Amino acid sequence: MTHFTRDSLARLDQDDALSSFREQFDLEPGLIYLNGNSLGVLPKAAKARVAEVVEQEWGRGLIRSWNTHDWISLPERVGDKLATLIGAEAGEVVVADSTSVNLFKLAAAAVRMRPGRSKIVSEPGNFPTDLYILQGLEGFLEGEVRLETAPREQLKEIIDEDTALVVLTHVHYKSGKMFDMAALTDRAHEVGALILWDLSHSAGAVPVELNAVQADFAVGCGYKYLNGGPGAPGFLFVAKRHQAEFRQPLSGWFGHANPFAMSDVYEPAAGIKRGLCGTTGVLAASVLEVGVDIMASADMEAIRTKSRQLGDIFIELVEQHCAGYGFTLVSPRDESLRGSQVSLAHEQGFAIMQALIARNIIGDFRAPDILRFGFTPLYTRYVDLWDMVQALAEIMAREEWNRREFKKKLAVT
Amino acid sequence: MTHFTRDSLARLDQDDALSSFREQFDLEPGLIYLNGNSLGVLPKAAKARVAEVVEQEWGRGLIRSWNTHDWISLPERVGDKLATLIGAEAGEVVVADSTSVNLFKLAAAAVRMRPGRSKIVSEPGNFPTDLYILQGLEGFLEGEVRLETAPREQLKEIIDEDTALVVLTHVHYKSGKMFDMAALTDRAHEVGALILWDLSHSAGAVPVELNAVQADFAVGCGYKYLNGGPGAPGFLFVAKRHQAEFRQPLSGWFGHANPFAMSDVYEPAAGIKRGLCGTTGVLAASVLEVGVDIMASADMEAIRTKSRQLGDIFIELVEQHCAGYGFTLVSPRDESLRGSQVSLAHEQGFAIMQALIARNIIGDFRAPDILRFGFTPLYTRYVDLWDMVQALAEIMAREEWNRREFKKKLAVT
Repeated sequence: MTHFTRDSLARLDQDDALSSFREQFDLEPGLIYLNGNSLGVLPKAAKARVAEVVEQEWGRGLIRSWNTHDWISLPERVGDKLATLIGAEAGEVVVADSTSVNLFKLAAAAVRMRPGRSKIVSEPGNFPTDLYILQGLEGFLEGEVRLETAPREQLKEIIDEDTALVVLTHVHYKSGKMFDMAALTDRAHEVGALILWDLSHSAGAVPVELNAVQADFAVGCGYKYLNGGPGAPGFLFVAKRHQAEFRQPLSGWFGHANPFAMSDVYEPAAGIKRGLCGTTGVLAASVLEVGVDIMASADMEAIRTKSRQLGDIFIELVEQHCAGYGFTLVSPRDESLRGSQVSLAHEQGFAIMQALIARNIIGDFRAPDILRFGFTPLYTRYVDLWDMVQALAEIMAREEWNRREFKKKLAVT
Repeated sequence: MTHFTRDSLARLDQDDALSSFREQFDLEPGLIYLNGNSLGVLPKAAKARVAEVVEQEWGRGLIRSWNTHDWISLPERVGDKLATLIGAEAGEVVVADSTSVNLFKLAAAAVRMRPGRSKIVSEPGNFPTDLYILQGLEGFLEGEVRLETAPREQLKEIIDEDTALVVLTHVHYKSGKMFDMAALTDRAHEVGALILWDLSHSAGAVPVELNAVQADFAVGCGYKYLNGGPGAPGFLFVAKRHQAEFRQPLSGWFGHANPFAMSDVYEPAAGIKRGLCGTTGVLAASVLEVGVDIMASADMEAIRTKSRQLGDIFIELVEQHCAGYGFTLVSPRDESLRGSQVSLAHEQGFAIMQALIARNIIGDFRAPDILRFGFTPLYTRYVDLWDMVQALAEIMAREEWNRREFKKKLAVT
């Protein structure tokens, strides 16, 4: 175990090849933001870009901007850039709709590609909306397919010849645990099943190689590590080899081969465009593009290296400075099994997080007892970890969390 | 027939009780924009609002803004305001997703509320995405339901005891023809079917009384007459009497009774919130709210009266000044059967529209031969009609449309 000091961490910041990226984000002075795994921060360039889209492209260009500002190809253009972050090719990714809607499209398409198989496999405690969407599909298809879940150590057993689709989240939202994407993908394919990876807590945070592992489908979120803004569009990936066969039921006009021919009969566009549904949300997709551009200009291996270090150092600091206060490490200690976050459990987790927020240190809380701290290598500094852990130690030493106002539940936590 | 002059139309503008609304929109000087039925113009207030949401709510508030800026209730808050424009109650409308996605949710829910019935009824030539989404549902449910269409004069006959759902667009996107919403709703209910109205070309343009006619479901578009910006969220309406039974398959976490409890089991929220799916697109919904606020502050009867007059005067002007040039009136002459647009057919329609656009007069073209002109009473002036028709007459007299550059098809027309 290394014995870190604030000075030694400041030196790591000085030597950090990614440190200049922090300048591209609009961060309030004094704020320590360890919640980029929930809502990423504002890229400075997004301010000018959204004004340009609103005032010039919409205000002046009006309907003409579908051509003159190429609004029509936004989903593919941003998708192609995003593809580089997740080991996909151009023409395999579009940004559109929400992660949840995209998951429905892909899961619905997948079960129809494996007729006669009745199971969708996932794990309990997967990100809620993933389970909810699969339950929605299960309920809608009334007995045709059923969702079966098992803890990850038993997953390989329940993935069997009756499995149409496996739906897993690569990095777990609560624990930060990372699946072995290659191994699970192989297991699904061994029995002839398809696999869909939710990359919401991976894209922009850890290297992902969808094509190298032969993944079939993926979805993900634009507003976490990609810094696309609150409720940014999600994305979807369909491997090229499946695109001809891929048919999804939300077959709106933006997925049509020739939407402006205004024919009465749906004919899916060639390629990934058939994953689109309604009219592109131009404002949101344009803002997401700013975040994706920044991320695509960074070196993903450097991001991963720093992310691992941030996590390792954070764990060591907590163990050194907060020992005896009742925290349990929920995330894997082994950085190769961990995404870009560290979660701690504490029975007073909610109040402790409120006390941190009152000190302008933002992580988040997930019921029943998890404190989550996300590390975003493009704007998190090593000294932020020091300052955060010192604050946490003070909050615990002084029982600062034990105030009435910190125990009051909010609408959204 | 009245013989209008530019002066007599300028006097109508002077006497127009709605004329002050034009000031609230950011219109390029010299532009005549008759395409608000396709993409509404920019409300001036949207510029400051989007900057506030991006810079303050996102940039400074970050994740806290779900509470402090009440992002969490955006879909219902804007929905409640929008409800006043379409004869719905508070708690019956949310804004979310796209019109297409919302149509899928409601149509899917509706067919499950009428088990044993196999037909969804619509009309040929309905707005393409409506037919495409219904075809997507039909294909996905493989033989359980089928889409049957008939021209509107035969619709009542094919709505029968085997009909689960009728899906119609109140104002036709191409012709501007308006359905008798009460009569068709009654017909659907007579045989025990449900009805879903697409209000994309109605909301903010013509009075709609969903509850007065006992409509079951509705969807609509935020970026046309509501001026919500390119690709603004759509909306959905579920009548209160159906909400307890209503279950839609896109059951994402924002439709959950308690999303942040992060439970593994979907439990639909009480009321209209169960129509939501993924995380709210905060930027887009906030901008849409600006447009809805303006619309909700105007008197819908005054809007309708002016809209009828604009249409009547436009038709008269075209007949007086463009006779003999080969235009055919596609929209109903009877204003009681017409929405807030007038469409003309002409075999050179595409090139003629390009020639108008080159003169800074914007309507649009819909294949194969339709020129559409939308009238938006909050910012269209009576003199705009005069100037537009004079330009059209000149274009025809000089055969200005007959230039190579006007005949070249664009990606989006």
